[in-house]
Amino acid sequence: MADSRKVGVLGGGQLGRMLIEAANRLNIQVNVLDVAASPAKQISAHDGHIQGSFKDAASVKKLAQSSDVVTVEIEHVDTHMLEEVADQVTVEPSWKTLRMIKDKYAQKLYLKEHGVDVAESLDLEGKGVQALKEVGSSFGYPYMLKSKTEAYDGKGNYVVKSENDVDAAFEALGKRPLYAERWADFRMELAVMVVKTKDGVLTFPTVETVHEDSICKLTYAPPRNVSRAITEKAQDLAKKAIGAFEGKGVFGVEMFLLKDDKLLINEIAPRPHNSGHYTIEACPLSQYDAHLRAILDIPIPASALRLREPSIMLNILGGQSPDSHIQIANRALTLPNASIHLYGKGDARPGRKMGHITITAPTLAEAEAEIQPLVAFVDELKGKPNSTASASQIQAATEDPLVAIIMGSDSDLPVLKAGLELLQTLGIPFTTRITSAHRTPDWLREFSKAAESTSVRVIVGAAGGAAHLPGMCASWTTLPVVGLPIKATHLDGVDSLLSMTQMPRGEPVATVGINNSTNAVLLAVRILGATDLDIRNRLRAWMEGNEKEVLRKDQKLLEQGFQAYLKGMGK
Amino acid sequence: MADSRKVGVLGGGQLGRMLIEAANRLNIQVNVLDVAASPAKQISAHDGHIQGSFKDAASVKKLAQSSDVVTVEIEHVDTHMLEEVADQVTVEPSWKTLRMIKDKYAQKLYLKEHGVDVAESLDLEGKGVQALKEVGSSFGYPYMLKSKTEAYDGKGNYVVKSENDVDAAFEALGKRPLYAERWADFRMELAVMVVKTKDGVLTFPTVETVHEDSICKLTYAPPRNVSRAITEKAQDLAKKAIGAFEGKGVFGVEMFLLKDDKLLINEIAPRPHNSGHYTIEACPLSQYDAHLRAILDIPIPASALRLREPSIMLNILGGQSPDSHIQIANRALTLPNASIHLYGKGDARPGRKMGHITITAPTLAEAEAEIQPLVAFVDELKGKPNSTASASQIQAATEDPLVAIIMGSDSDLPVLKAGLELLQTLGIPFTTRITSAHRTPDWLREFSKAAESTSVRVIVGAAGGAAHLPGMCASWTTLPVVGLPIKATHLDGVDSLLSMTQMPRGEPVATVGINNSTNAVLLAVRILGATDLDIRNRLRAWMEGNEKEVLRKDQKLLEQGFQAYLKGMGK
Repeated sequence: MADSRKVGVLGGGQLGRMLIEAANRLNIQVNVLDVAASPAKQISAHDGHIQGSFKDAASVKKLAQSSDVVTVEIEHVDTHMLEEVADQVTVEPSWKTLRMIKDKYAQKLYLKEHGVDVAESLDLEGKGVQALKEVGSSFGYPYMLKSKTEAYDGKGNYVVKSENDVDAAFEALGKRPLYAERWADFRMELAVMVVKTKDGVLTFPTVETVHEDSICKLTYAPPRNVSRAITEKAQDLAKKAIGAFEGKGVFGVEMFLLKDDKLLINEIAPRPHNSGHYTIEACPLSQYDAHLRAILDIPIPASALRLREPSIMLNILGGQSPDSHIQIANRALTLPNASIHLYGKGDARPGRKMGHITITAPTLAEAEAEIQPLVAFVDELKGKPNSTASASQIQAATEDPLVAIIMGSDSDLPVLKAGLELLQTLGIPFTTRITSAHRTPDWLREFSKAAESTSVRVIVGAAGGAAHLPGMCASWTTLPVVGLPIKATHLDGVDSLLSMTQMPRGEPVATVGINNSTNAVLLAVRILGATDLDIRNRLRAWMEGNEKEVLRKDQKLLEQGFQAYLKGMGK
Repeated sequence: MADSRKVGVLGGGQLGRMLIEAANRLNIQVNVLDVAASPAKQISAHDGHIQGSFKDAASVKKLAQSSDVVTVEIEHVDTHMLEEVADQVTVEPSWKTLRMIKDKYAQKLYLKEHGVDVAESLDLEGKGVQALKEVGSSFGYPYMLKSKTEAYDGKGNYVVKSENDVDAAFEALGKRPLYAERWADFRMELAVMVVKTKDGVLTFPTVETVHEDSICKLTYAPPRNVSRAITEKAQDLAKKAIGAFEGKGVFGVEMFLLKDDKLLINEIAPRPHNSGHYTIEACPLSQYDAHLRAILDIPIPASALRLREPSIMLNILGGQSPDSHIQIANRALTLPNASIHLYGKGDARPGRKMGHITITAPTLAEAEAEIQPLVAFVDELKGKPNSTASASQIQAATEDPLVAIIMGSDSDLPVLKAGLELLQTLGIPFTTRITSAHRTPDWLREFSKAAESTSVRVIVGAAGGAAHLPGMCASWTTLPVVGLPIKATHLDGVDSLLSMTQMPRGEPVATVGINNSTNAVLLAVRILGATDLDIRNRLRAWMEGNEKEVLRKDQKLLEQGFQAYLKGMGK
């Protein structure tokens, strides 16, 4: 690099380790304050590391003295010492931000003051069991009892399900500074990694997070069955929240997507975050690259935070047996799209984050299909039934169709047969649905609007007569729609052909020949093949087969003469 | 990992360093034999490293004693010591293979014996100037004079251009063991990384390599303007060559693509190779992951070696000024798709490999557009004119079109105008060409066959009358072809419409309405948008604009009544 600035980091766990992976590639020295041989120190051999606790003031001072910029991989640090050293060394993000965020109650009040939607909270610090019961009367049950500080991965949280739980909850957490939160009746949890630079605020894509026992289990980028409008709203909300804080670096913003599509901030982390691990493989810049660049004022092109391919991240947690996590990693070694990260931690405790696996694939459906057996194995190790939901309510659970074939009536099915068999021959997964533009207009609308957020990338619509089906479908989707005119009783199919080709400017239907389901399907395959080399190769092989077949016939005609040839044809 | 085997590696340069990056993620300890603070050791903090030269027998022995598997990052090692330790420790690849390959002349004889095509060679070891002249008479000029051993990055090679060069060539290399190679009149250099496992031989995709001053400058994956048949032939040749050697691990195979499309092996490296750096970002498994897995018998799913996105790699070499390489890296920081790798080497010498940059993008054309200014900057630093060729002879040098619009005649252009303007509005790069199925059948064939290996992903064919253009184009390509029927003097365009829709089974044309160039273009945009979220978003915004426009008109009609509305329309 053009400069030789040294970065000091409080904490040398997996987040610090992955930060160092990024720093190593730019030859930037990172001094780690943590115990000897912590995960981060293992991949960084120099004499600038400091041995000690990141909560210890003297050690923080020592780190500050040997670094040009100090940052954190965890917010549970001594912010008073950071405040003290802040006039000698740059601290990113600001100690004020760290102090505010490490107290979850203060964090929420602050966000609320800045007009950001958060769950309703009540202060309970220094109060007793009676106050907990009053919260129950006010918020209703269940509600969340939370420690303001030092709470993570479910530690310091208690779900108070009824008044009967109050004593046990107080018993568990009563010695800590507490607050209560109204229960958020969410349908899904989302998260956004935000990057705050000297020039502004950028965001990575929105992800869906799945928690189990209050620990992040899986992330999906993009979220499953969530409209773009919502993922963009989530990014805007995350931007607004982080814009309220001082300092540079990446921030993790966790939020609830409520059943009425409203978004509420759940928690903020002033550092790289578990929900951003997927960025290492799935984006040109990872959250670690971005954090390093942000705190050092190195440029970050906004489009470097794009999603290269859809991606699923699975945490590898310590399990019931000492080698559960190793069993999981070994299974992942057999998956073609899995990147495995083991953190170099010593012994596994149940729930300890030992590593993670990221799968990226051309579609989320393919990534799901690949990771599903591994998730099932993880659940099996835990003695749980498989908990992953199917990719989409639209498609059957066992299929990840790339092509959807819709028809106005089952009477179109005999014409479609040749095309469907060709899709099978070419190994293209598809789904077939019956939906009539005139008899089931609402179902057609629902199908067409939702198709985009499933694995489907092309729709083939077959219809006869007035044949409004593909045209209406094209009006409700941005996916390419192929129209297959079906020959009905009158007009020889010309009616359908013209009603498909002659769509108004704006919503084209890619029309093929009357009753030619082979060509309808081949067009869908070409569309997939425009960006999928594997499919293109299969198509090419099939086309070459056809070419050979015609050349073979030509040779035969040449050899036999036309009379013998016609005889062979039975004519 | 399930095992705690230790890997010993001879050499701790950039290849060893990137091998350790891969090993760190699996928590596999790699013991490096090299000088202190060599690039590989910098990112691996443990006490198993050995300080010394990888050519020193005693050090190799020490490494073998502390490791379970020994491998190399360079072939210029003491293979006799490896032979000696091979009964105590696994050596991969085999010392026999290393010994054979480190002598380039022996390597070639061996390959020839195994039926692999190599450049014709003549032994010159121990011979004098007269023998060099005899080679010139036999091979003709220019020919290559090469040292059998210790030759890399152009060191140890001499191009003998004429008999006048013979004395200087002998002066330069005469003290080394020499051989001569017939000049290969190649149009391009290709390389394939091969993985040899206990179960068989796998290959990464074929890349194009561009050398400058005998040092690798750029790699392109996939190669530019090379047919799939040739890239597959290159993979087969590489597989055959490596199949002839003993041992496991990755091998780099460099070859020449001659002007008659014949392939010749140039050189083999028994280790990760510069031409495989792109795999870190561009493939699910990198060459380093693959090498580690192969030598440790860890599974490698064949499809993990797929190309995720097209990719270009640029080496960062030391230049004329001590900070040239830093200037290059700093420029790369502003590119959105650039991954930067700096190797942690000390001072830069001209030509020293200080790092590399990999760009991946949805198309090679986009990657080229992004890296081109950086390559120009590198050339400028070297005082050279820009040396990169344009992406394709088919497309104009300044364009990277995603859509190709072909028309049978310039008389179709007025109809196309609306569509072309819409493409401009949506920011979709396109190219327009005139090619008639009947008047320029050969040019149409050439265009159609080559389109696939350019940036083009959809073709729109506009034609009137018999309108064979899109149908013939579809017969020569696997890309999706949209047909736009043009209304000619007779038959109202129905002739064109039917000749496009009614294509025989096998080669569909996606036909839209007569003269509706807007829909032809929108269909192309939908096809691109099926896999490109950015394009889909632009299309959605445009469609929403249309929706609002109609809703606005509806409101106006409601407010004004139909008489006033008609008046406003001037009717």
